[in-house]
Amino acid sequence: MSSGATTSRSVCPVTYALEIFGDRWTLLVLRDLLLEGRSRFKDLLAANEGIATNVLADRLRRLERRGLLSKTRDPTDARQLVYAPTETAIGLVPMLVEMMIWSASQGQARVAPSFIARFEKDREALVTDLQAEIRARIGKPQL
Amino acid sequence: MSSGATTSRSVCPVTYALEIFGDRWTLLVLRDLLLEGRSRFKDLLAANEGIATNVLADRLRRLERRGLLSKTRDPTDARQLVYAPTETAIGLVPMLVEMMIWSASQGQARVAPSFIARFEKDREALVTDLQAEIRARIGKPQL
Repeated sequence: MSSGATTSRSVCPVTYALEIFGDRWTLLVLRDLLLEGRSRFKDLLAANEGIATNVLADRLRRLERRGLLSKTRDPTDARQLVYAPTETAIGLVPMLVEMMIWSASQGQARVAPSFIARFEKDREALVTDLQAEIRARIGKPQL
Repeated sequence: MSSGATTSRSVCPVTYALEIFGDRWTLLVLRDLLLEGRSRFKDLLAANEGIATNVLADRLRRLERRGLLSKTRDPTDARQLVYAPTETAIGLVPMLVEMMIWSASQGQARVAPSFIARFEKDREALVTDLQAEIRARIGKPQL
């Protein structure tokens, strides 16, 4: 494995997770890649009001190094890079869903009522559907 | 509501969650209060290698202001403060569980095999049990 193994100061799972994506911008970029379907640098930049170009570039590099995203050339425009979440990143969907539901429960975050209804009806199905949608969007074979 | 309502820059639920606990130390303090059963300043300080006294005091103040923890005097020693997670904080257990399971799946974090087995057998029961254990520990009536 990459530097993650050697720089890890702790094996507590919460600390480990924070070392990988415990940076505010990193988690927002993961949200965009996973839940918003953004895949290009300029869209990721526009989505995160206030993120500096060099900060975004750094977070994308780190995510790639940690195995959370892959980078390819756009087949229709070779100058453009396309970023896609890996299976490791798609594995974060359950955590993101719980984060969204918690925020919704606080009454101050905008979460679609249909999303909450799907969660309340069948959490597992919601997570599985979201992950399938991500894989379909990035052209990955369904697991 | 407190400052949370007025300083919120976005109503995206991920951004909202990050505004509340998107700071590394804040999430580690929540882990200690919720999952490690720590309730005293000196134990929280000792648990987080490298956290400065003033940083811990600040994060505890913020968590209290945001309604995630309550502070009382120790009945056996009035000079001691006892910190306890509120129901809002206990509502973060599902997210913490998902975070731990994801870290465990990466093979680098220490998660008890019995914890993973309970998760795989019945996630809902694991979450409910953990929340009941927290309420019992802090002497709250079971919901």
